[in-house]
Amino acid sequence: MRVLVPFDTQSPKTRLAPALDAAERELFAKRMLADVLAAIDATPHDPLVLATGPVETTTPVTQDERPLTAAVNAALADADKPVGVVMADLALVTPAALDRLFGLADGAEVVIAPGIGGGTNALVVDQPGFRVDYHGLSYRDHRRRAEELGATAAVVDSYRLSVDIDRPADLREVLLHADGSAAGWLEAAGFE
Amino acid sequence: MRVLVPFDTQSPKTRLAPALDAAERELFAKRMLADVLAAIDATPHDPLVLATGPVETTTPVTQDERPLTAAVNAALADADKPVGVVMADLALVTPAALDRLFGLADGAEVVIAPGIGGGTNALVVDQPGFRVDYHGLSYRDHRRRAEELGATAAVVDSYRLSVDIDRPADLREVLLHADGSAAGWLEAAGFE
Repeated sequence: MRVLVPFDTQSPKTRLAPALDAAERELFAKRMLADVLAAIDATPHDPLVLATGPVETTTPVTQDERPLTAAVNAALADADKPVGVVMADLALVTPAALDRLFGLADGAEVVIAPGIGGGTNALVVDQPGFRVDYHGLSYRDHRRRAEELGATAAVVDSYRLSVDIDRPADLREVLLHADGSAAGWLEAAGFE
Repeated sequence: MRVLVPFDTQSPKTRLAPALDAAERELFAKRMLADVLAAIDATPHDPLVLATGPVETTTPVTQDERPLTAAVNAALADADKPVGVVMADLALVTPAALDRLFGLADGAEVVIAPGIGGGTNALVVDQPGFRVDYHGLSYRDHRRRAEELGATAAVVDSYRLSVDIDRPADLREVLLHADGSAAGWLEAAGFE
């Protein structure tokens, strides 16, 4: 299965500004992306970065300058199904957490990993008409969308998939629970 | 297995003060407790409320006026092992999430459900010397404690077990993801 990983190459992670300056945010975002790609690579599935600009990585990259929702929906329309979508800032992700997400797709046409605060941190879609909308309480909207389409839906109960790294307080979760390159970068930068 | 559920009957959930007044917090805390007890009852295990004062419930109650850490440690010392400890404010808990927590105890002497922010939301202890300390980053401290004791440890990856309802922002998670009596109480109180 193809797993899309959307990545914003222009000023990523602006809400981390109280903790990290612009150059640091860019480095840290790249480390998180690398960790997410490595975790997907450790499953039987194939990551594809969906980036707004050029990205240095050995993973295949598709460039699409449009905002997140539009770019993901274009990719969903084109992709063979099932297809996964995993956010690039899930610094706590592990292959085991992804295996649980992907495993639920055997019994459901739409699988959702909710984010804390009502977002959608990961999806598996095996339904031709399903489209995303990442604005607002997207978890609720995506469940409704699945219901309207008559699609079977499942929700994965994972802490590691629920934590996206947006705000300075989230960095604590990285330091406590992750051991990838993003956590290493934070430690080297002096965070404890 | 016995599952302890610590419950503070005196002014519970003070950090919810920006959203709920004292009487509302007391009612809401009781609803969350009821939901947690119902979820444990739906597993093969037996809840025991460890309360600082009298509680109206059909579940057995042990009263201990001491603070959380001291009361839990006294109960741990007395209890047959394995023994569980599940916080009373896990309003998103489900029997399935608890089954995953309890199931890991087959292969580990200490099982931890981390809370967002570094806390410990649930434990299973099958080690005579293990004691808790809920102050500070208790997740890290409990892992260290297990390691010092040479105990095998496991961590359950559950969003539902990671969310304890402390602050007004947490109420959104209840409304989005729970359908128990606490969620019903919030909706009846006008929260959306």
